[in-house]
Amino acid sequence: MTHPPAPTFVLGIDLGGTKSAAVVGTTDGAVLARVAGPTPAREGPGAILPFLVGLARAAQDMAPGPLAGVGVSAGAPADARTGRVFEAPNLPGWGHGEGVPLADLLSSELDGLPVRVENDADATALAEHRFGAGRGTRDMAFLTVGTGIGAGLIAGGRLHRGARGAGGEVGHLAVEPGGRACACGLRGCLEAYASGPSVARIAGEHGFLGEATGRAVVEAARAGDPAARAALLQAAQMLARGLATLSMLLNPERIVLGTLAVHASDLLLPPLRAALRDLTWPRIHDGLTVVPAALGDRAQDLAALCAWLAGEEETTLSSVAPA
Amino acid sequence: MTHPPAPTFVLGIDLGGTKSAAVVGTTDGAVLARVAGPTPAREGPGAILPFLVGLARAAQDMAPGPLAGVGVSAGAPADARTGRVFEAPNLPGWGHGEGVPLADLLSSELDGLPVRVENDADATALAEHRFGAGRGTRDMAFLTVGTGIGAGLIAGGRLHRGARGAGGEVGHLAVEPGGRACACGLRGCLEAYASGPSVARIAGEHGFLGEATGRAVVEAARAGDPAARAALLQAAQMLARGLATLSMLLNPERIVLGTLAVHASDLLLPPLRAALRDLTWPRIHDGLTVVPAALGDRAQDLAALCAWLAGEEETTLSSVAPA
Repeated sequence: MTHPPAPTFVLGIDLGGTKSAAVVGTTDGAVLARVAGPTPAREGPGAILPFLVGLARAAQDMAPGPLAGVGVSAGAPADARTGRVFEAPNLPGWGHGEGVPLADLLSSELDGLPVRVENDADATALAEHRFGAGRGTRDMAFLTVGTGIGAGLIAGGRLHRGARGAGGEVGHLAVEPGGRACACGLRGCLEAYASGPSVARIAGEHGFLGEATGRAVVEAARAGDPAARAALLQAAQMLARGLATLSMLLNPERIVLGTLAVHASDLLLPPLRAALRDLTWPRIHDGLTVVPAALGDRAQDLAALCAWLAGEEETTLSSVAPA
Repeated sequence: MTHPPAPTFVLGIDLGGTKSAAVVGTTDGAVLARVAGPTPAREGPGAILPFLVGLARAAQDMAPGPLAGVGVSAGAPADARTGRVFEAPNLPGWGHGEGVPLADLLSSELDGLPVRVENDADATALAEHRFGAGRGTRDMAFLTVGTGIGAGLIAGGRLHRGARGAGGEVGHLAVEPGGRACACGLRGCLEAYASGPSVARIAGEHGFLGEATGRAVVEAARAGDPAARAALLQAAQMLARGLATLSMLLNPERIVLGTLAVHASDLLLPPLRAALRDLTWPRIHDGLTVVPAALGDRAQDLAALCAWLAGEEETTLSSVAPA
């Protein structure tokens, strides 16, 4: 008589600048329990740790069995190797320089459960790769086109983290060398043309008089507003430059676009795809599809679970990998 | 009484447009035997296979023991997964569209010995990573700056091949969108500014009257020629743009530059490093060193051996990697 293996449950924490959540899920992406609340971001890092521990314990109490570990998807730069989270606009005061060792801090508050952290764009890339629009691919990129432009790269089936966990900055590729100043300090970054606020700013320069948000520009463009249309067309062309660069370097088979690119996919994707063909070789673009993200409202929960699950795979791999 | 493990010998074939070689080496990079000859490239692919088989058999005869396998470093696009080599300027008539299944063809001529092929820039990246200037790194890039600009990327300790083995095209990143026409059909490619022939052309446009080669421009720049200096300075700045893009995406800890960048490192590297700092975030450039390639004349032999050795590691990895 054989016993089926016990299901493995995972705790996922989505740490956002305005709200956060803790979920209990399975390795195949079912979310069984969820607790959420507003992040006390303005009260500084000292208030966030107890808040996250509270969420985690409440979710843990609802778990149907023991947990394998905890994944944290953080709306801030994170280094998965050290478990540290660094300062971000949404999380002021966190980790000047050295960052905050969030994985270790959480682990010691959660009875030693192992904790892994990922930047939320990387974690969402993992989630789209495992459960969403990137399923079945070995080489893909995920871009979130929202207030900022973040990205996660899957190379040869694994998340590419780079030497300091700082790769994947598609939003800060110089798509127009010497061009518009970006809030990051560089010039001509993709984000300075194609993020929601940048699209709104550029539409305003073209004479758009509506609300200064990416969503409002998208609605106006659908209604035929020429300034809104011009701003979105430029965003599509600059996105194509960034994706062309990404594609010539990494030769992905799929690029998954989230957030604004999902809501405005009818307006953005046709000109983007056409420009991308003009800016890449047939060997590169013939094998490539550019699609909207598929996970919708589930993306953040699944990203948090994947922050744990991806690390589990790599532990297995690294135990046999040559030095 | 225990027996030491038998040394593993590897056959490496360097397939070039003008000359080729076959070597017998060890897994730790010692070259024990070498046979070379001029590639019958103009006689078409039908003449090259018997030529390579002849080189390989001659080298095999000198091997001190049985061979584990054969690596081919090809001066042409190659797909390591299928073992195919595609048409290149140096190898006309090869593999229109589908390519030539070189690994299978060679294997059947060499008594079924397993054969792996890599593009030579990828194979040289593997060699610099294992034996040269990239030793000890997990994330690095290798660029050869010669007649063309080729590159190989090591991501998380493994060669990044991309979906169709077509990644790493650093030479064809658009460092000046809409800029100079490149022979590849795109515009503003790094290669159109920084390859040897491009540097010579641009120096000529600045009034340089010497021989139209990258080497001649480097010598003249060292002697103070202003046109030669201007062309090399522009090449350095465009290289910095390409490396900034690469670095923001992949966050490497080392970039290794070969060929012209080795011969002209005194002229190219100081302005390149300064521009790279201006074009990247401190988090990216503080952990990054840009260095000349270290293998010199040994690069091609070791690249051929590494075309086999890298595949051996991945077979081990893929046997445990999750789908």
